[in-house]
Amino acid sequence: MKLIYLDWAATAPILKGIPALMSKSLLDFQGNPSSIHSEGKKAREQLIIARKTCADLLEAKPEQLIFTSGGTESNSIILSSLFRKNKGAHLILSAIEHPSIYEYYESLRFFGFDIDFVKPDSKGIISPDILLKLLKPNTIFVSIMAVNNETGAIQAIDKLAETIRVYEKANGRSIHFHTDAVQTLGKIPFKPGLLNINSASFSAHKIGGPKGVGLLYLQKPVQPLSAGGGQEFSIRPGTENTAGIIALAKVMDISLTKVNSNFTHAKLLKDLLITELSKIKGVRLLFGSDRKDQDLYSPYITSITVSPVPGEVLVRILSDEGIQVSTGSACSSRNRKKQMRILLASDVSGKDAAGSIRISTGWSSTETDIINFVSVLKRVTLELKKYHK
Amino acid sequence: MKLIYLDWAATAPILKGIPALMSKSLLDFQGNPSSIHSEGKKAREQLIIARKTCADLLEAKPEQLIFTSGGTESNSIILSSLFRKNKGAHLILSAIEHPSIYEYYESLRFFGFDIDFVKPDSKGIISPDILLKLLKPNTIFVSIMAVNNETGAIQAIDKLAETIRVYEKANGRSIHFHTDAVQTLGKIPFKPGLLNINSASFSAHKIGGPKGVGLLYLQKPVQPLSAGGGQEFSIRPGTENTAGIIALAKVMDISLTKVNSNFTHAKLLKDLLITELSKIKGVRLLFGSDRKDQDLYSPYITSITVSPVPGEVLVRILSDEGIQVSTGSACSSRNRKKQMRILLASDVSGKDAAGSIRISTGWSSTETDIINFVSVLKRVTLELKKYHK
Repeated sequence: MKLIYLDWAATAPILKGIPALMSKSLLDFQGNPSSIHSEGKKAREQLIIARKTCADLLEAKPEQLIFTSGGTESNSIILSSLFRKNKGAHLILSAIEHPSIYEYYESLRFFGFDIDFVKPDSKGIISPDILLKLLKPNTIFVSIMAVNNETGAIQAIDKLAETIRVYEKANGRSIHFHTDAVQTLGKIPFKPGLLNINSASFSAHKIGGPKGVGLLYLQKPVQPLSAGGGQEFSIRPGTENTAGIIALAKVMDISLTKVNSNFTHAKLLKDLLITELSKIKGVRLLFGSDRKDQDLYSPYITSITVSPVPGEVLVRILSDEGIQVSTGSACSSRNRKKQMRILLASDVSGKDAAGSIRISTGWSSTETDIINFVSVLKRVTLELKKYHK
Repeated sequence: MKLIYLDWAATAPILKGIPALMSKSLLDFQGNPSSIHSEGKKAREQLIIARKTCADLLEAKPEQLIFTSGGTESNSIILSSLFRKNKGAHLILSAIEHPSIYEYYESLRFFGFDIDFVKPDSKGIISPDILLKLLKPNTIFVSIMAVNNETGAIQAIDKLAETIRVYEKANGRSIHFHTDAVQTLGKIPFKPGLLNINSASFSAHKIGGPKGVGLLYLQKPVQPLSAGGGQEFSIRPGTENTAGIIALAKVMDISLTKVNSNFTHAKLLKDLLITELSKIKGVRLLFGSDRKDQDLYSPYITSITVSPVPGEVLVRILSDEGIQVSTGSACSSRNRKKQMRILLASDVSGKDAAGSIRISTGWSSTETDIINFVSVLKRVTLELKKYHK
């Protein structure tokens, strides 16, 4: 059975050549990059090259990039650096953040921070006006995800940053603006170095790299909570994952160079998907059903509802048919209630959220994948609707 | 020029078959282990198998093992979990901890914890009596490294644990006993599940696995400071490094199964090294020069001093000769003052510490490596002593 993989937002298929590159790097660069002998130097040079490659692609300076173990750790470095800030300070997290940011609120509240959640409008968009209403004189931190992994909503990070900078200037207290940009990488043009943001997170495995490596863009250094051997400018200690970092630079180079054609391809597939889905009864787009809104959403991500059929049931049955889609974020797939948080915060009803599935495509997805998926979805949904009314 | 690699304590040469295994795993298990579809399940099953393998090898339960990005993160999970404990509580860190533990003291003090550093005796050993003197009714945490990466000192973790448990029982307040056991793995028999300790850290790349993956043994769950998608029993969030974890289980299986023969081999090499070194003028063992003390030290690690020649100069010159050794921990190699901390805490004089180098061997090290190393060392030292008096 040929698999139809439509869960790219959870993880991308490994890019061709990456397993061989990892394997070669493990053999060629075996030293500890911190060692001062020749084997250490050889490995260290690879980190310098990789950092320069990534920096050029993101229009950033090499010293602004921190290699991490993934998007979650990139986010965690920023969130945990807040603990050393003044208690009582005001933080704003969007209500649609990834769990690696959102779930921090509990520890942050425990430490006495005042937290507001900024909610998107019914289209899933956080407007500068909505944000502005929440900014306070003692706001020190704002985190808003660049592209949501479930709704696909693209936030206007440039305009949100501008709003923050204007407020900051008037108020005289600096605000750290962080964005989880994992779903932009190689997919939607996004250059942190050209935006007035303080930090942004990225991950290798969402674009065909290995799992276990990611990146943190840092406009200026933060004081990390954790400590160690001084690696990564003392922001992220621990022996560097040389082979993973080399692979990260490679998949970034490939996918960011092709970001525009990737985007065009994804748009074509999404148009096809929407057209085909419109022919099925009982299936609805959760976002962007008004075609004039289409630019608000990532073309790679489409959430639909088959309510009253539970999304989880549908995902399992589609999997048996060789089709891989998901119910929202893989990161919360074991906890359906937590998983529905983002849709609910985006004004999706509880019923529709429970019946939601997410289809996410990537560079090797094809029109045939879409057509075959919709054809199976049609048959399966018709069958399931008999049992779920 | 054939390299003589004697810096295994910094990182081990990659084990044969591991690059190919990583490459195959990247191809065979591409799904996100949290995804509920078949590709996710395939990856998830590999994590279950790997966890079981590691658990059996460490005499632990699978649910007591957390896969991390390395030894530093394993340590960090434990240290950062302390921040949520009562301020003013008393913590004991050994003065010879790895920087990923030791350097946490600054953040911990900032948060109001009362910290004592337990110093080893002049042999580098922390005796139960020394520890007992520092325990207080409000002590909640003790961290003592199982095998020091610079002195090679093996701490009696079983006896230290017993001391803590007796005190705990009398005092009625539980104490978390953590040990950084990175330098034991596959080298010295160490089964956390059989010891009365609360947690222990391990790393893959010190035994021939890839960099970027490690393990944390946790007797019982702790409340982590960071948060995210619920992976690794919610202790260590983030998409799992499937290929890295498979490789970790493999190198653990290989090296722990052979731990006794590995140990015997290392002992033979150390004996040879000591004998050969004794023939060179101006070179001294920093620990274990009294042969009756030899069981106090890891046979894999030998620190010597060539004072007044600076260790760093010697390491660079040896590197030019194809010999890879280090000045103490690679993790602090960019900061000589910080790097000397462990030797100074172990009663080595400043002069001897500045002139120190560390020789560390592993399974593929040979007698010829040792003989050739000492022969070059003799020539180089003689030359250098002309300039450094």
